[in-house]
Amino acid sequence: MATASSAASTPTLGVGMIGYSFMGAVHSHAWRSAGRFFSLPLDIRMSVLCGRTPEAVASAATTMGWSSSQTDWREVLTRDDVDLVDVCTPGSNHAEIAIAALNAGKHVLCEKPLANTVDEAREMARAARRAERSGVRAMVGFNYRRLPATALARRLVDQGRIGAVRHVRAQYLQDFITDPTFPLVWRLRKEQAGSGALGDIGAHIVDLTQFVTGEHITGVSGMTETFVERRPLPEDATEYGDVTVDDAATFLARFSGGALATFEATRLATGRKNALRIEINGELGSLAFDLERLNELEFHDATEPDATAGFRRILVTEADHPYMEAWWPPGHGLGYEHTFTHEVTDLVRDLAEGVPPRPSFSDGLRVQRVLEAVEHSAHDSGRWTPLPDDDAEEP
Amino acid sequence: MATASSAASTPTLGVGMIGYSFMGAVHSHAWRSAGRFFSLPLDIRMSVLCGRTPEAVASAATTMGWSSSQTDWREVLTRDDVDLVDVCTPGSNHAEIAIAALNAGKHVLCEKPLANTVDEAREMARAARRAERSGVRAMVGFNYRRLPATALARRLVDQGRIGAVRHVRAQYLQDFITDPTFPLVWRLRKEQAGSGALGDIGAHIVDLTQFVTGEHITGVSGMTETFVERRPLPEDATEYGDVTVDDAATFLARFSGGALATFEATRLATGRKNALRIEINGELGSLAFDLERLNELEFHDATEPDATAGFRRILVTEADHPYMEAWWPPGHGLGYEHTFTHEVTDLVRDLAEGVPPRPSFSDGLRVQRVLEAVEHSAHDSGRWTPLPDDDAEEP
Amino acid sequence: MATASSAASTPTLGVGMIGYSFMGAVHSHAWRSAGRFFSLPLDIRMSVLCGRTPEAVASAATTMGWSSSQTDWREVLTRDDVDLVDVCTPGSNHAEIAIAALNAGKHVLCEKPLANTVDEAREMARAARRAERSGVRAMVGFNYRRLPATALARRLVDQGRIGAVRHVRAQYLQDFITDPTFPLVWRLRKEQAGSGALGDIGAHIVDLTQFVTGEHITGVSGMTETFVERRPLPEDATEYGDVTVDDAATFLARFSGGALATFEATRLATGRKNALRIEINGELGSLAFDLERLNELEFHDATEPDATAGFRRILVTEADHPYMEAWWPPGHGLGYEHTFTHEVTDLVRDLAEGVPPRPSFSDGLRVQRVLEAVEHSAHDSGRWTPLPDDDAEEP
Amino acid sequence: MATASSAASTPTLGVGMIGYSFMGAVHSHAWRSAGRFFSLPLDIRMSVLCGRTPEAVASAATTMGWSSSQTDWREVLTRDDVDLVDVCTPGSNHAEIAIAALNAGKHVLCEKPLANTVDEAREMARAARRAERSGVRAMVGFNYRRLPATALARRLVDQGRIGAVRHVRAQYLQDFITDPTFPLVWRLRKEQAGSGALGDIGAHIVDLTQFVTGEHITGVSGMTETFVERRPLPEDATEYGDVTVDDAATFLARFSGGALATFEATRLATGRKNALRIEINGELGSLAFDLERLNELEFHDATEPDATAGFRRILVTEADHPYMEAWWPPGHGLGYEHTFTHEVTDLVRDLAEGVPPRPSFSDGLRVQRVLEAVEHSAHDSGRWTPLPDDDAEEP
Repeated sequence: MATASSAASTPTLGVGMIGYSFMGAVHSHAWRSAGRFFSLPLDIRMSVLCGRTPEAVASAATTMGWSSSQTDWREVLTRDDVDLVDVCTPGSNHAEIAIAALNAGKHVLCEKPLANTVDEAREMARAARRAERSGVRAMVGFNYRRLPATALARRLVDQGRIGAVRHVRAQYLQDFITDPTFPLVWRLRKEQAGSGALGDIGAHIVDLTQFVTGEHITGVSGMTETFVERRPLPEDATEYGDVTVDDAATFLARFSGGALATFEATRLATGRKNALRIEINGELGSLAFDLERLNELEFHDATEPDATAGFRRILVTEADHPYMEAWWPPGHGLGYEHTFTHEVTDLVRDLAEGVPPRPSFSDGLRVQRVLEAVEHSAHDSGRWTPLPDDDAEEP
Repeated sequence: MATASSAASTPTLGVGMIGYSFMGAVHSHAWRSAGRFFSLPLDIRMSVLCGRTPEAVASAATTMGWSSSQTDWREVLTRDDVDLVDVCTPGSNHAEIAIAALNAGKHVLCEKPLANTVDEAREMARAARRAERSGVRAMVGFNYRRLPATALARRLVDQGRIGAVRHVRAQYLQDFITDPTFPLVWRLRKEQAGSGALGDIGAHIVDLTQFVTGEHITGVSGMTETFVERRPLPEDATEYGDVTVDDAATFLARFSGGALATFEATRLATGRKNALRIEINGELGSLAFDLERLNELEFHDATEPDATAGFRRILVTEADHPYMEAWWPPGHGLGYEHTFTHEVTDLVRDLAEGVPPRPSFSDGLRVQRVLEAVEHSAHDSGRWTPLPDDDAEEP
Repeated sequence: MATASSAASTPTLGVGMIGYSFMGAVHSHAWRSAGRFFSLPLDIRMSVLCGRTPEAVASAATTMGWSSSQTDWREVLTRDDVDLVDVCTPGSNHAEIAIAALNAGKHVLCEKPLANTVDEAREMARAARRAERSGVRAMVGFNYRRLPATALARRLVDQGRIGAVRHVRAQYLQDFITDPTFPLVWRLRKEQAGSGALGDIGAHIVDLTQFVTGEHITGVSGMTETFVERRPLPEDATEYGDVTVDDAATFLARFSGGALATFEATRLATGRKNALRIEINGELGSLAFDLERLNELEFHDATEPDATAGFRRILVTEADHPYMEAWWPPGHGLGYEHTFTHEVTDLVRDLAEGVPPRPSFSDGLRVQRVLEAVEHSAHDSGRWTPLPDDDAEEP
Repeated sequence: MATASSAASTPTLGVGMIGYSFMGAVHSHAWRSAGRFFSLPLDIRMSVLCGRTPEAVASAATTMGWSSSQTDWREVLTRDDVDLVDVCTPGSNHAEIAIAALNAGKHVLCEKPLANTVDEAREMARAARRAERSGVRAMVGFNYRRLPATALARRLVDQGRIGAVRHVRAQYLQDFITDPTFPLVWRLRKEQAGSGALGDIGAHIVDLTQFVTGEHITGVSGMTETFVERRPLPEDATEYGDVTVDDAATFLARFSGGALATFEATRLATGRKNALRIEINGELGSLAFDLERLNELEFHDATEPDATAGFRRILVTEADHPYMEAWWPPGHGLGYEHTFTHEVTDLVRDLAEGVPPRPSFSDGLRVQRVLEAVEHSAHDSGRWTPLPDDDAEEP
């Protein structure tokens, strides 16, 4: 287990976090824990938690380990004890907060999806590129890149162990809105959530497959569906309102190396609780992953003789697996929340070393463009919708 | 174990089979075995095996248990000891043989896919409807309907155990042409095979999902790909020829009940040997099946309390599972070939009872139309391609 | 697929079978099928089926494919058209029939367990050794050696892929007598069955682990238990009788190479239908098998780097897997009954080549001695009970 | 997610921890985290960390979140800011420290196994009973009782869902000393470790099966083995020393309700990293658990109709699963370390409510007696060794 050095001379990194619901809780845990397990070049100071309701945010700050609380996020940007702003609000105000923070010279960690629209995401990517020139960094929080299993998958692809990629199949299946009486929460309203399953969970598989393959999506053909068109209001179950986002989205895609891909994101896959499943078939081997078994990676090495070839279940808990040098002995699995511990660790190290952290806001924009292309295709009879070349985005 | 009665009074069913390669071998096993395990109303007589090469077909007839052999399929149609013709040739001559047999008053069992084109399939369906008026029956051999596991899936859907279907995801993954030096066999040439993965294995998942859901596909949006465009000739590996069929096909679809579906058929999914995988999510439950574990069905009952709900692995080997009354004690799994034993059993019983067997040639035509729509969509930028209403086909 | 030659010159092997319930049905299928799939040096003639009730055995003979039937097994031994006697009766009369058949110069295939007692088994092994001198062969039917998966396991051990064996854990779990109202059938009476779970299913894991490891058991320490001591009579459920065999047996053992082993056989493992599970840990690797997934073998290669090591699931359906040259393409799984098809194939080939078939009656005796030692230990407070050196048995 | 109240009026619980290697790291994480996720009735104060080397323990204290450090554990017992002593040292000095702490009026949490010998464990249990009279509490850290999956298993047994228990099979398989060049670390020397696999990991499965079944073990019959008798010294690999503990232990056991059990603990099960596997078969159902998939529990309900019965894989991540009210949404798995977070949570709540926490030192003694009985049996030819009635231990 690596242990953090805490010599008096270690420089500090003051953090201010905006938002404190589900994502706020796991981010707080990550900020508290990273330095306990990993040797970090910066001392993390959890300076301030920001939320709308004074009493609630103060109480949350205490519980979650923040030194102070605030109700106006703009104030956070002016504090000397804040070097980095962690944006955990809903997508609809990511752009405003993140751009202001960057402009104020604060590093930014922004939860995914980067924004609710491509336009916002493009503005954010531009702000990030501008900020980078003065050493101010921006990162978007696609935490599933930070699982030992997915990072190992990336490493194996990078080492050429599966050869040229032929097929990608990716699903993110949940079931929590299967029941038609599930209420019309904010995640089901376009104005706040931007989109439904597509942006919330589809974004993860778009980013993750691009990360693991090291390629990007060049075009899509998609369909979306809202199975339950009206749902009871959260505040009054006798009243109904319109669901204005997709319940599910499916799309075909092509990767830059020529691979054929299928994607599916839904919250009505009964019995699948958090089944982010990825399978990648290459000329020399295959990889398969399921988030419901997050400490495992399946790997098929097609260069093995037929008689002994087979998908092997790698328990990704060995000391030489990604991130595992800091953790428990083999076979002692990690939990979901340490994707964020690793995210924070990587970010802090990159900040100290002056390396631009990934996924960058440009990476986040790329995901956003894929999601938008799916929506366009879905509204145009599934017609093939190519994605613009990345360079076209650059100013 | 049911035992077949073989009293002298049992009427007979004389069978003539055309073709004797892979499919011929499993069909022969089925014709030999059905009456050994199931109580059949007709005594099967394996009258004649037909193939092109006199010596080879005679030898095969002996090995496979046929009383005689012949080299001209038209002769088979004139024999008095042939009541049923079993067509096991490549798809390109299904139509000619099957229609002639029906016109000659012989029942027909035709291997899938029904034909290489919709036009041929339509002719065959018409011939079948005509023949049916005089009690002559036709059936297409989608054998995977006859697994205890898939038949149980159908039964559970029929009983309402999963409620309204929301999602279908179906894959048929093989890997035998991953190696680019795999030769240009007939399955890779359009003139004989009609299509590639799409027609060969995609046809199975189209039929099977329609069977299990009890619904039909109303439209598709597809892509196909030929990754390896030229391959060495089987007769001379130093020469190369063009692959003229798809290596892989993916498509989105909509079912008649509104479900969103993704389909994928490929022979380049490294490490997947025979992974016909189907998952169906309904409002009240889900089903999952993988042909690589053919004696199992996974079932999630969403009406269970959360605390004890989970996908259960049903070993489909109990006496009250479909077809299992004839077989071994619980837990003693069946093999692939008994899908055909069951197919023959169902067919013989239907013939004796005067019931039109399923899947009918019209069912086969429906599959063919889906495949054609996928190809059309793939050639038209993935554009949504609706399927004509079934009634439109009727004469 | 290999095809059987059937030239007129092929010598024949006439078979007579005694008994025709469950085992009779699978043996008949094997005798019918072996020559259809494998190229055999002898033409199998299914001459006669023998059973007690004239009408029933005649009907069974027709259904199962035997040319004639008989009610006195001694008559079978005198027939010229019988070269081999297949003994499928309950264990209590294996010895009498098998010894008489061998003395009459007939080859014998005897179902497992070889006998109900070590004394009987020893007599049988002696008779087999005597017969062997005149070229008459005997084999005991431990069919689970003939699965492609278990035969592959044996091959991998033999190739040194797992190194010195450290641990063997073997379970045979069924659940069909869990319900205390399950009737007192013959399998639950000592006079016919010899023992309960121990001899019926425990015998299989004793033989199979010795086969796969290539070692023998040198001592045991055991416990047995009869949970349900009285059960309703099959003929009158209002009357109860004593269960006189074990419901379950567990024992520790040592293998000749020093490995530590645990064994368990039970028919009250609720939900386990036919879970013959074996796991073997060696210095260089491990193997795991479960009969409920009979087409799979798990193999861990500990010489792999940690980062990519894991139990691989081998689908044992490739052409170069044991027995698979005769069967279907990769991924098309076999069923339980072909263990017997392979058993018959191996036996017929050994007979033609003049090779003593395995497992021999001496192998069967060895298993019987292990079972007896378990019973002795169980009756002596679990005390360690060494097994006599094999040579001590020889005359 | 529950949030901890932190009103000024919440009473505090000062904690001093002795030892800070592997167990110290996970315990520290638990003390830091419990109040962040669970609403606790006491405010945890991490007062002091105690270790032998001044500089190292001071650095560890900072990294792990302790306010101060100390090198003499006796000093810890005199501090006013310590209400509870957490003993994380090797087993050989558990007794001395724990008894002294209890006598000093400090609550004690003691890592497992309770002690290296039954005599020590008995003294500790006596001290705990004495202390309890004055409200001073003691608990032994069998953390695997605190997994949501094992706690759910206990709940299901308690609810009668599996009926009378017939079989228990428990394995704890690791492989880290398979390589004969693995050095002779302290865990392989009897004077420090007490025993090998038996006490280190065997203790866990003894406690856990007794916990889940709600029964106790009444006798055992065991074997132990040291496969690698000499190993290189950690300080000089050219020198070898004797391994003085077992590499592996297997034993048969009987539970108080009559169930038959098999146990196995080993560190040479190649490829098994942390396979604590438990399967329990009852008259009405079965349960199966594997620590390598710690967020899952398999449950078979035998009262289901055969047609739909099967082992269901419960993802134990629902809000109404044990401990899950505090964590993430369904399907977001927990990691190994939260067994300790839950342990601390339960302990703190019990302390506040004045309830004797479990497992008590008497529970720990019970486990120790089972381990000792296994060793006795192993040294006496596996002879059945009954366990004394619990009451016999009481003063």
